[in-house]
Amino acid sequence: MTESLDSARLACWRAYIESSQRLLTRLEEDLRATSELSFADYHVLVLLSEVPGQRLRMGELANRLIFSPSRLTYQVSAMERRGLVARQSCPGDRRGSEAVLTAAGLLALREAAPHHLASVRTHLMDDLDDAEVACLTRVFERLGRRLGAPTTTASDLSNR
Amino acid sequence: MTESLDSARLACWRAYIESSQRLLTRLEEDLRATSELSFADYHVLVLLSEVPGQRLRMGELANRLIFSPSRLTYQVSAMERRGLVARQSCPGDRRGSEAVLTAAGLLALREAAPHHLASVRTHLMDDLDDAEVACLTRVFERLGRRLGAPTTTASDLSNR
Repeated sequence: MTESLDSARLACWRAYIESSQRLLTRLEEDLRATSELSFADYHVLVLLSEVPGQRLRMGELANRLIFSPSRLTYQVSAMERRGLVARQSCPGDRRGSEAVLTAAGLLALREAAPHHLASVRTHLMDDLDDAEVACLTRVFERLGRRLGAPTTTASDLSNR
Repeated sequence: MTESLDSARLACWRAYIESSQRLLTRLEEDLRATSELSFADYHVLVLLSEVPGQRLRMGELANRLIFSPSRLTYQVSAMERRGLVARQSCPGDRRGSEAVLTAAGLLALREAAPHHLASVRTHLMDDLDDAEVACLTRVFERLGRRLGAPTTTASDLSNR
């Protein structure tokens, strides 16, 4: 079952997917240990914190999070119950709705961010030399463009 | 909120985490379009297919998948209902149980693997030059070791 990837690329793929899943699990554990936030909660707060007015249409938020509409509705509803976001009708489009960052959501993000970024440094970034940083940036920015990442997201996010 | 990562490392982290999540979503979509398997199903089948006797204790499987015990029980039960795996008591330890790959599970994996690996090639691996492959392998093998990946897994997996 290995015929479609040469051995070097297969070893690369295995190391990448295995370690990335392990890393995401560890980061989520660290986040939950130091805040009330899941990784998905944190991601939503970051995205909303960085757009003008700290609000996004639900469809745009789903696109940036790569969530299905139903998963996003579930995620935002859970955060709404905890006061981290609010939902409002879009100005000029009563059928649309927006997720809006609340002050409580912003404060929760600001409290969680230093711990989360320290965890990112400890588990991954502090171990990379400059050439590795440049290589990963090049590879994953190219990948994001190929997979249709919104360019504003790619260049605007600053606290994940 | 960016004080704990320099700007090059922050850009690297953003590109990596954003593109990786986008990639995983795309691979799962491709997998579901060409098979009856989720990414987690596929991963379980791969792990079981590569160990002696095609069976693993539940605790060892949870450790390799980085799943909590409750999540693994849910995952394996769902696969058991579909005939992809079976559960049996461990020989010599009636309290322990093992997940065992069935013939139907192996056939499902063999049918899904070429499509899945083609998807991995298309979305990621074909775009990398040899130096990038070497860099990613080095970085993510180091990461896996730091995060406690089982060494047998790192060197044995051959069809993810």
